[in-house]
Amino acid sequence: MDEMRENNTLDSRDFDAEVKEIIEMVTERRYSKVRSTLIENNAVDIAEILEEIDEELGLEREILVFRMLPKDVSADVFSFLSEDNQVDIINGITQKETDQIIQELAFDDMIDLLEELPANLVDKILVKTTKEERSLINTFLNYPENSAGSLMTIDYVHLKKDMKVSECLQHIKDVGEDAETVYSCYVIGEGRHLIGIVSLKNLVMSDPDTVVSTIMHADVMSVSVLTDQEEVSNMFKKYGLIAMPVVDREGRLVGIITVDDILEVIDDEATEDFQRMAGVTGDSDDEYLEMTVFQHVKTRLPWLFILMCSYMITGGIIARFEDMLSACISLVTYMPMLMGTGGNSGSQSSTLIIRGLATEDVHLDDTLKVLWKEVRIGLIVGLCLSALNFLRIIYIDHDTPGVALTVCGAMFLIVMIAKCVGAMLPLLAKAVHIDPALMAGPVVSSLTDMMSLGIYFVFATIVLGIGQ
Amino acid sequence: MDEMRENNTLDSRDFDAEVKEIIEMVTERRYSKVRSTLIENNAVDIAEILEEIDEELGLEREILVFRMLPKDVSADVFSFLSEDNQVDIINGITQKETDQIIQELAFDDMIDLLEELPANLVDKILVKTTKEERSLINTFLNYPENSAGSLMTIDYVHLKKDMKVSECLQHIKDVGEDAETVYSCYVIGEGRHLIGIVSLKNLVMSDPDTVVSTIMHADVMSVSVLTDQEEVSNMFKKYGLIAMPVVDREGRLVGIITVDDILEVIDDEATEDFQRMAGVTGDSDDEYLEMTVFQHVKTRLPWLFILMCSYMITGGIIARFEDMLSACISLVTYMPMLMGTGGNSGSQSSTLIIRGLATEDVHLDDTLKVLWKEVRIGLIVGLCLSALNFLRIIYIDHDTPGVALTVCGAMFLIVMIAKCVGAMLPLLAKAVHIDPALMAGPVVSSLTDMMSLGIYFVFATIVLGIGQ
Repeated sequence: MDEMRENNTLDSRDFDAEVKEIIEMVTERRYSKVRSTLIENNAVDIAEILEEIDEELGLEREILVFRMLPKDVSADVFSFLSEDNQVDIINGITQKETDQIIQELAFDDMIDLLEELPANLVDKILVKTTKEERSLINTFLNYPENSAGSLMTIDYVHLKKDMKVSECLQHIKDVGEDAETVYSCYVIGEGRHLIGIVSLKNLVMSDPDTVVSTIMHADVMSVSVLTDQEEVSNMFKKYGLIAMPVVDREGRLVGIITVDDILEVIDDEATEDFQRMAGVTGDSDDEYLEMTVFQHVKTRLPWLFILMCSYMITGGIIARFEDMLSACISLVTYMPMLMGTGGNSGSQSSTLIIRGLATEDVHLDDTLKVLWKEVRIGLIVGLCLSALNFLRIIYIDHDTPGVALTVCGAMFLIVMIAKCVGAMLPLLAKAVHIDPALMAGPVVSSLTDMMSLGIYFVFATIVLGIGQ
Repeated sequence: MDEMRENNTLDSRDFDAEVKEIIEMVTERRYSKVRSTLIENNAVDIAEILEEIDEELGLEREILVFRMLPKDVSADVFSFLSEDNQVDIINGITQKETDQIIQELAFDDMIDLLEELPANLVDKILVKTTKEERSLINTFLNYPENSAGSLMTIDYVHLKKDMKVSECLQHIKDVGEDAETVYSCYVIGEGRHLIGIVSLKNLVMSDPDTVVSTIMHADVMSVSVLTDQEEVSNMFKKYGLIAMPVVDREGRLVGIITVDDILEVIDDEATEDFQRMAGVTGDSDDEYLEMTVFQHVKTRLPWLFILMCSYMITGGIIARFEDMLSACISLVTYMPMLMGTGGNSGSQSSTLIIRGLATEDVHLDDTLKVLWKEVRIGLIVGLCLSALNFLRIIYIDHDTPGVALTVCGAMFLIVMIAKCVGAMLPLLAKAVHIDPALMAGPVVSSLTDMMSLGIYFVFATIVLGIGQ
């Protein structure tokens, strides 16, 4: 994303009406009116309108309208378009137009674009860059996905430690327009080593003749280029930051991360967890509607297949007890309820623990505390559900007390164990460095299904006295 | 949270070691050393250390250490403590100490505290407030939970439209220390009507003699006190904002919301969805470990009970086909697999749609697009799983082709329908203004379980020719 937004311009309630109006104007080819209406909006909204034009009237019309934007606006708008749309537009405009956009584009937006671009278009972007720029771009393209390096921008304001406050403010005036943020300024020493941080607030509130090193904070918190984005976003949340410096292994300042990008990271991390917890693999960056049917199949089939196979074991358990089931076929009636309740009990616990681990409210060394809590919760929940169920089987189903006892005894034990297993699995995963989010509903359910049937059939054998 | 943090002070890697060291010092009653070590940290970390002391050595020691903090630090630290801990501390300190903290506390932190406090302690807080302050506090306490009003703070910088830039900067110098942010300043007209917005960046980059009304943005985006926090956070994400003004029904500026609070909102909203999707009801603000066993039971029992009851229908379906199952008991073996795969297929789709709706990537008017996509996905996934399953039943289980055909025909239809039902339920919920997150795994599973068994038994009746 380009520079953190300074101003809020536009009332969102009228926006839908305006989009419709503009699309109508484009249809009627009233292009000068389109242009004048469009440029009254901010870049985020112009980008949204362009994508609407693409969707309603096709790509050609979108490119036509995009080309009408003033030079200084178009790069900004471009940065807010979806990645697919950016590629389409680069494909549809001339080399000269591309050069103009690239020149104006913030460095981190250019990197994002290059990551998406097919090889033949990369040259169209890089044709005007110098050798040094290409080398820098290469470094950035090589930072691992989801690392601090892949999130950061180089457009920050840096100051020297012996500058006076008035000189700092003048420097910000000179270079601030292109910076991602001017609110955190970074004081660097020899070899670009990060030695301090000073906020624009501090600068504005200090005497103009003060030397910046006397008001800067020297004890700077920073992350490395390889720090995972989840860890970075947790630091933003904990300390309420608006920017964070990124340093290389030698402590040299190489970039900054701003809070607007962190807002997206928090969302992406949650989306990734939601998907993994539902047994969907793959890339969280892609939107549902933008993915093709085959991409969807590819992300869904693996876990469905693995889980389906796990039910071979469940089937095997049933096969072992076939004679017993033949002898008392009404036992089958309660199978779905026991499996379902076991799965739901386990999912509740595993979801709470997975989320707790993600938001750092639960830690690995809380394992015993969690277990003790779940044992007690399982005890109470299991007792309640069993008791209600007993009454139901006797008074509504009019089944025998023997069957009621079997079902309710099994129910109690199933809920108890499912709660503990559900809570322990994510912690176990964390301990062996597997993503805890994988230990959610689907996996927990297929495990508790096996367990539920096993417990149920053993209870039946004992209580009803019908063996295998 | 108090004022957005300006500076990063402390390297997180050494933090755990430091906490241990301080706890040791407290144990050894080396209090002057404790104090000097403590105050080298920032307020967020001091608060964390205090909570560690509470956990390791008890509340009395924590209060003892809290009292040693310098006056100007203690209110700041207080604002970062957990709500339970704040109440404990207010309980343990004198009226005079309370007054000092309350005086220094940011207005929104005071409101948060008052919301948590038992009635007998509220008086301890309010004893020094004036009549006007009490009236304002009352207004804030009455804003609905999760509304913009409940998130906002009154500590913002406002300017008058005929002020010069130099006057504005001087004004910020005078009042900025207590403001939540100085980076967005609000220009108000008669009757506190919000007429414009100007960033500190704009002010710093402009000529000192410029009149602020000529550089402010007059087309201000704002939210109402009653706007839902999810909508507010979506605007922050979309436009990359760092602050948002809040106005009342007459368009008068009543407060601002800053991005640090939005970071928490995004997390809370995701947590709420995670919990609802797992069939856990209740308040997402409470952390897992802080909740009592009974609170956990209260949040988990309702859905487990409702879903358990829904399995009475599933049981009824089985009861109707008991004779058939008796005649071919091996059909029971495949029941868990069909139900499980149906539930998993449906959960995948419902999770993706629920998340898409929450992040606004999917909208209600995409319903037909979604349905068409899920039909095709279901077709392919269903075919793959059925085919693999057919081979398994014939070559591994050595069951009859009739059984294989029954199971695989049912599997195909179950996956297809489960995908569509899973995707449509959240959209349907949205259409009738129910939270789509409720239409997740547990609910989808219990519905698809009924459907799966129904389809399976009908297939068996037709293919195997064994009727009821």
